[in-house]
Amino acid sequence: MQVKLLHCNGLDYVDSAIGMCYDKGCYIDSDKRDKRITKVALKHKHSSTIEFCNFIFEIEASTKVLLEMTRHRMANYAAKSTRYTLNKGDISFESTGNELVDRTIHSYLKQVEGFVKAGVSNEITSLMLPQAYTYKWQVQFNARSLMNFLELRRAKSAHFQIREVAEAMYQLVPDDLKYLFNGVQNDD
Amino acid sequence: MQVKLLHCNGLDYVDSAIGMCYDKGCYIDSDKRDKRITKVALKHKHSSTIEFCNFIFEIEASTKVLLEMTRHRMANYAAKSTRYTLNKGDISFESTGNELVDRTIHSYLKQVEGFVKAGVSNEITSLMLPQAYTYKWQVQFNARSLMNFLELRRAKSAHFQIREVAEAMYQLVPDDLKYLFNGVQNDD
Amino acid sequence: MQVKLLHCNGLDYVDSAIGMCYDKGCYIDSDKRDKRITKVALKHKHSSTIEFCNFIFEIEASTKVLLEMTRHRMANYAAKSTRYTLNKGDISFESTGNELVDRTIHSYLKQVEGFVKAGVSNEITSLMLPQAYTYKWQVQFNARSLMNFLELRRAKSAHFQIREVAEAMYQLVPDDLKYLFNGVQNDD
Amino acid sequence: MQVKLLHCNGLDYVDSAIGMCYDKGCYIDSDKRDKRITKVALKHKHSSTIEFCNFIFEIEASTKVLLEMTRHRMANYAAKSTRYTLNKGDISFESTGNELVDRTIHSYLKQVEGFVKAGVSNEITSLMLPQAYTYKWQVQFNARSLMNFLELRRAKSAHFQIREVAEAMYQLVPDDLKYLFNGVQNDD
Repeated sequence: MQVKLLHCNGLDYVDSAIGMCYDKGCYIDSDKRDKRITKVALKHKHSSTIEFCNFIFEIEASTKVLLEMTRHRMANYAAKSTRYTLNKGDISFESTGNELVDRTIHSYLKQVEGFVKAGVSNEITSLMLPQAYTYKWQVQFNARSLMNFLELRRAKSAHFQIREVAEAMYQLVPDDLKYLFNGVQNDD
Repeated sequence: MQVKLLHCNGLDYVDSAIGMCYDKGCYIDSDKRDKRITKVALKHKHSSTIEFCNFIFEIEASTKVLLEMTRHRMANYAAKSTRYTLNKGDISFESTGNELVDRTIHSYLKQVEGFVKAGVSNEITSLMLPQAYTYKWQVQFNARSLMNFLELRRAKSAHFQIREVAEAMYQLVPDDLKYLFNGVQNDD
Repeated sequence: MQVKLLHCNGLDYVDSAIGMCYDKGCYIDSDKRDKRITKVALKHKHSSTIEFCNFIFEIEASTKVLLEMTRHRMANYAAKSTRYTLNKGDISFESTGNELVDRTIHSYLKQVEGFVKAGVSNEITSLMLPQAYTYKWQVQFNARSLMNFLELRRAKSAHFQIREVAEAMYQLVPDDLKYLFNGVQNDD
Repeated sequence: MQVKLLHCNGLDYVDSAIGMCYDKGCYIDSDKRDKRITKVALKHKHSSTIEFCNFIFEIEASTKVLLEMTRHRMANYAAKSTRYTLNKGDISFESTGNELVDRTIHSYLKQVEGFVKAGVSNEITSLMLPQAYTYKWQVQFNARSLMNFLELRRAKSAHFQIREVAEAMYQLVPDDLKYLFNGVQNDD
């Protein structure tokens, strides 16, 4: 499993969006900016304002994770096509944490390689790939959509592999933006 | 592979939507109605008007097909969870058309059943499932989104399994609505 | 202001969606069905399952309300075009509740009619129309999106005209579906 | 009417998205990059790859333009609220090109100012505002959505004010990205 943050455009346009709504302009002081974002976007739930902050990640994880991630429709995806890549030799998988299961999956992938080498088309051999098979994709979330994703997928009820990916994504969020994804204390 | 059409609300609200835009009311005569829909929604590309026609399908097909279908984000999905269903015994798969590959996949599923019976958790055993594994899901498309889906997925370049599903969906569209999905001749 | 419910496909496909997820089939007993929907979709927040329930409304209200309603992007719209309809004579407006303001708006609309009769194009005269001007449109929400809309727009902080429309929409929801929009008591 | 381009993240992540799909990596040579984007995203219609290129605009234009622009749902909006800003004194409007109409609209706005000064609430006075009234908003489009917007709104059939805004947006697209919005010659 590997997650990279390729791009984040920061909070400047979230700030200008909020400034726009109230006709009050932008903040230079980042403390004041963060306080206003917390108040307007998080506590008062005008969450459409944080849609101006975008994240692009590159993710290498199991087919299982891809299958669950693409259910989040407020995002943009580009995935490595097995059609073009299966016969290039890099058939690997994500560990399940169970040694015997891992060994079994390993033997499956060896068999898939055998079929590929024997000239069976990718359209057919791709159907043999287990959900542990490693896919690679690029995904874009805006902060509002990412907030929803992280809340659902960092929860204990999520599958352990997608939880790991979600946790890695959260860790890659720049420190000064992390507060967007930490939940809100309604203490005032 | 099995596809059922559970629900379609017909063209009444497409007709009223177009009547609304031009303040001209609805048609009783279905011939006139269809001509107006063809002209406005298909030829003049005001395709948002056909979003008022909804289809709900129940689909049983391979994981591969689910993986590609959920990339269509303008739709609503509910899928059978492997977490709740894997240990209930119905582990089957969609034929690949290649006998040797099918036999291999069959042996994989027998092994998965073995692990399930041995008490390995569904979280882990689900990672062994091949993309041929039969999923079941419910999906809702509006006519505009379905038009886009059928155009891309009935094409020769699509994977043969999703092409089969898309073709079955098209065949299930009620006859008097099929013209929405037949492409447009710009002959006038 | 006038709101009509044109169409609602009920809860059958919400029920089948939930039955699908847990591989448990549908309920005939509507009490059991409602309890399961409350538990899964409302309390456990699997709200994507209620996206299979659709509502189509016809609404006659002020431009102001249209302007705020279209900000809800998870919906489908068809609006009466001023381009085709302004010169047909039905230029009316929604009362503001302030008699003097109403009289002023009335005088504006009389002037617009004058310009229309003098042959000034609708492209230009439509720019004179006040936000109180009565538009007519058709809108489709699924239950999840409607839930969000009603929560925000029936609130005290909403503009009184959109609050009236939202309240009328809520009243038109069939009685046996109203519980979807009443908020949830987390008492279990 | 005023349009500013606040932000554009360029084509790097479109290129990496396409490189991902075919497992071929990114291009340094921008000529090769542009040829590949033209081929894959524009000619072969894998237009989801250009969703990784985002534009944020600040727009000052008529209420009419805002009303039509927000119909494009694949975008993010933050608009100046009349509730917070109407009593701050900047009530202006976009010229209609017709002198007599402009003078009439000017007199309307003077009356609105009178009502505001007399203490009538913004909730009510905002209903008097003509569609020529100048709004200000921030909008984010990804390149795919912008392509659709510009195609429809730069067309001759569009209202002249939204056509002006769309044209200004097109002119602000950086020169090396303009080819995305120039239509495609299917000459190869």
